[in-house]
Amino acid sequence: TIMKLGQVFPNEKVQTTQGELQLHDYWGDGWGIFFTHPADYTPVCTTELSMVQQMVPEFTKRNVKMIALSCNSVADHAGWCEDIKSYGKLSEVSYPIIEDPSRDLAVKFGMLDPEEKDAAGLPLTARAVFIVGPDKKLKLSILYPATTGRNFDELLRVIDSLQLTAYKKVATPANWQAGGDCMVLPSVKGEEATTLFPQMRIESVPSGKEYMRFTPQPQ
Amino acid sequence: TIMKLGQVFPNEKVQTTQGELQLHDYWGDGWGIFFTHPADYTPVCTTELSMVQQMVPEFTKRNVKMIALSCNSVADHAGWCEDIKSYGKLSEVSYPIIEDPSRDLAVKFGMLDPEEKDAAGLPLTARAVFIVGPDKKLKLSILYPATTGRNFDELLRVIDSLQLTAYKKVATPANWQAGGDCMVLPSVKGEEATTLFPQMRIESVPSGKEYMRFTPQPQ
Repeated sequence: TIMKLGQVFPNEKVQTTQGELQLHDYWGDGWGIFFTHPADYTPVCTTELSMVQQMVPEFTKRNVKMIALSCNSVADHAGWCEDIKSYGKLSEVSYPIIEDPSRDLAVKFGMLDPEEKDAAGLPLTARAVFIVGPDKKLKLSILYPATTGRNFDELLRVIDSLQLTAYKKVATPANWQAGGDCMVLPSVKGEEATTLFPQMRIESVPSGKEYMRFTPQPQ
Repeated sequence: TIMKLGQVFPNEKVQTTQGELQLHDYWGDGWGIFFTHPADYTPVCTTELSMVQQMVPEFTKRNVKMIALSCNSVADHAGWCEDIKSYGKLSEVSYPIIEDPSRDLAVKFGMLDPEEKDAAGLPLTARAVFIVGPDKKLKLSILYPATTGRNFDELLRVIDSLQLTAYKKVATPANWQAGGDCMVLPSVKGEEATTLFPQMRIESVPSGKEYMRFTPQPQ
């Protein structure tokens, strides 16, 4: 079955390019991204894993640790990493890649794409992303097909929103980017709102309800 | 249970701000986006539904029809549309909004966010997006929490990719934008590749496998 928001991400023991890992231990007290790709030695996946490596400094700055998975073996992953490094002009692939040739994990997390099959006719993993908070609960997920490479700038954008809104009493509006105005949560009422957000401004709307409350991004 | 890629989107009969609709009939032969928001008369949702209306010309150009859903009633949706129009300086909300006060649809599609509850303690819908092709099958999905407004530019980006790759034998790399170079599908071999994509260039990688094949975006 597929993961729901708020569900604890299973603490699987996984075999990776960096040896055996327990997912929760790997993520420690920080944030985690678990992402899957259809297959090693394929074009879009190579651009994706290369871009993730280029963005590791951005993820590290945000206390986010990445882990990848496909249905290939660790040996395949290791060989393919040479291609990823060469394509991306990278000195390393520093995040682990999980093997799942049995597809046990892919089935468990609902990540198989029935439209994408390998040479033996077995389904491959879709381009899934799961963002897991320090509480190990699922915060956000995306599921793209094999044909459509992900937008890793959008992943940074949502991480910035998730981290901001986890600690401040705001939410982020449509198409928000880090540094942009935020919305004060409806649960923050009256004086608490004006104390917490002295620069709050309310846009009036025909209903007369005062819920369109903007504030500069809290620091 | 949550929708999987490739699954036919259920042909529900729904009650909307534009009357009763049957989903498949509403989408007709085109593409569809089914998206949910946590609640009417809340800040982030207002920015989102207003932005969707602003982008209707972009979606129409791509033969995509939008339909929204939350657990509120049609009467609430209708009242709230006045706020959406006022906030976005819009003359209309031209796409239908489905009511789901019983939460039957939200449960069926796995769109409830257990962390977000209404005044009565009932769970609300998350920010889900389902993109459905002309064959009515699910092509892509995202699931964001209430705190994090969606990025509708990313929706246009993936629609452009889904539509391009549905008809041409290419896939789109990480962070691709419309007009950017595409990757030739691994299933396209030898002469077919050079015939279909005369400007194809192959980036060599250490494995010696010739799969990093780029081509200008096919027209």
